[in-house]
Amino acid sequence: MRTTTAWLSTDGTTTLHRGEIIRRDLRDDDLAVRIDYCGVCHSDLHMLNGALSRFKSFDGGVVAGHEFTGTVTEAGPAVTGFTAGDRVAVGTLVDSCGVCAMCEAGQENYCLAGPTSTYGSPDRIDGTPTKGAYSREYVVRAPFAYHLPDGLDPAAAAPLMCAGVSVWEPMRAAGVGPGTHVAVAGLGGLGHLGVKLAVALGAEVTVLSRTPEKAVDARELGASELLLTTDDAALAAARGRFDLILDTVSAPHDLSPLLQLLALDGTLSVLGFPLPTTINLMELAIGRRKLSSSGTGGRRGTAELLAFAAEHGITADIELLPSAQVSDALARLEKGDVRYRFVLDLSDLD
Amino acid sequence: MRTTTAWLSTDGTTTLHRGEIIRRDLRDDDLAVRIDYCGVCHSDLHMLNGALSRFKSFDGGVVAGHEFTGTVTEAGPAVTGFTAGDRVAVGTLVDSCGVCAMCEAGQENYCLAGPTSTYGSPDRIDGTPTKGAYSREYVVRAPFAYHLPDGLDPAAAAPLMCAGVSVWEPMRAAGVGPGTHVAVAGLGGLGHLGVKLAVALGAEVTVLSRTPEKAVDARELGASELLLTTDDAALAAARGRFDLILDTVSAPHDLSPLLQLLALDGTLSVLGFPLPTTINLMELAIGRRKLSSSGTGGRRGTAELLAFAAEHGITADIELLPSAQVSDALARLEKGDVRYRFVLDLSDLD
Repeated sequence: MRTTTAWLSTDGTTTLHRGEIIRRDLRDDDLAVRIDYCGVCHSDLHMLNGALSRFKSFDGGVVAGHEFTGTVTEAGPAVTGFTAGDRVAVGTLVDSCGVCAMCEAGQENYCLAGPTSTYGSPDRIDGTPTKGAYSREYVVRAPFAYHLPDGLDPAAAAPLMCAGVSVWEPMRAAGVGPGTHVAVAGLGGLGHLGVKLAVALGAEVTVLSRTPEKAVDARELGASELLLTTDDAALAAARGRFDLILDTVSAPHDLSPLLQLLALDGTLSVLGFPLPTTINLMELAIGRRKLSSSGTGGRRGTAELLAFAAEHGITADIELLPSAQVSDALARLEKGDVRYRFVLDLSDLD
Repeated sequence: MRTTTAWLSTDGTTTLHRGEIIRRDLRDDDLAVRIDYCGVCHSDLHMLNGALSRFKSFDGGVVAGHEFTGTVTEAGPAVTGFTAGDRVAVGTLVDSCGVCAMCEAGQENYCLAGPTSTYGSPDRIDGTPTKGAYSREYVVRAPFAYHLPDGLDPAAAAPLMCAGVSVWEPMRAAGVGPGTHVAVAGLGGLGHLGVKLAVALGAEVTVLSRTPEKAVDARELGASELLLTTDDAALAAARGRFDLILDTVSAPHDLSPLLQLLALDGTLSVLGFPLPTTINLMELAIGRRKLSSSGTGGRRGTAELLAFAAEHGITADIELLPSAQVSDALARLEKGDVRYRFVLDLSDLD
């Protein structure tokens, strides 16, 4: 067994303390990765404060963090394609059954036997709960690590691995490209990457917001306009406009005004924290609107996104903090006070 | 003004009485149609018993009926393409604004200014409420009448105009064809046409039912199998199988077991009576499932369906009744006692 240093929650709060955790000895197809940068995701917040803990298994405290970049330090004997010193990126998944229809389609995130999450999942071999990347080292099966393309800043690229692929896959599924109209509700970690990626795909992009001051940010990210969701006349004029709406707002909210904005056969993809929501099916009947959601990404989509991001020079706009400030970052994230994603520099854990 | 005989409800019940109603004098682009056959749709039931009346305007009693075939008796001076004696079919729509994006896309059923329904809508010119086709004559704008193709039985073809196009459009939107897997829940008017049309489109079709005895019917309609929704093991084995599920069940029911059966990016199209329904968005996230619905069809889809039905010899399986038995038909429909669609023969109104 190996040990490493991590930021732990043992009391169901987001006040984390520094401690030692165990990583497994390398199996044949494992990599040991020194974690350099890890993004702070809204799911981390939910997991740490216990809101999602019923879905997960923990033992000896929660270590969050599931979008990270780092450097390979060691490779198991069966690993090909990675050697010590390689820059890598890892996201929300670290294993899956590998044989079901979803895995065969490259959508291991929907593995019918249940994917292994980067934290809070029982390891498929020894059953111990996975612990996340608010730590200095991770041991991961090589198929779930990705080469970080040259030219991508490793800190700003970390959020591609969860926030990025979470917006990438629904856009690809909806065929976003030149001629399509995409709206993005919520300019946070997911939303700002949604705007950048949709623009790079060639779509016309609109930001939906209650805050007129965000129009400047929206344009800087490449959106053609900001549509004020408090302006009833503007909403009425935009009725039926969008082929895809990425709804990244995490607070509970009424989906009805967003559904009205969908074009024929358009999709509202709800990516914020999923709560039970009451839907009037009549609102889906008009214009054959579709309500959907998406759960991060599979290996195929993640690899595709990294290549696309490198080609177009796209990373997240981040606030980089020493990992010792993780509890502050979580507190600020809870208030929505981040522009647009916190990334932790884990070098202070040495 | 013209008068005709109709089956009316004046007391919010489904016990109809025979009476006279007024039809407008022909405008320049109108047709007068002698109604020969009219299908009995579940929506008629809801409208007559008052469940939907808040959406509609009535004056002097409700006349239901919005899938009919008949014979042109007279054409306005501006009409081209129809002459007296032509066999025609009319569905749920009789007018729309004609200039909005939905109308331009041939989806007048989603007209942004509000389509004019065959009954219960204010006429766009004189404002009087439209009255439906449980009657001997209808006056309709020629663009909303369709030539009934040779070879289609006029009684059995009538249900194509609502039940048929209601399943046709979501199948076309989902790209149903060879290689796709379609499931149909509920073997009523919509469901049995859904099976026939999906089979003719080349899809592999499964019927979902609680009733094992329906397996024979399912195969006769062309389905490859019946999946018993009370059989948990069979449901588990079918998880992730279907690209499209047409849910035609009109009673309130849990959508969750159906969502589990969807393949990656699959769509659950809920076509029964739309009630507010609580959705766990987490269930849409897994596999990027989509929840949708559909509201009958536009001119483009309706014309396409009639041509396809003629090419493949598809009509509804019907129970043909003299129109004087309409109240019995409605009572039996409410109990689900019909195989698969009642059609009224209006000749007894002469």
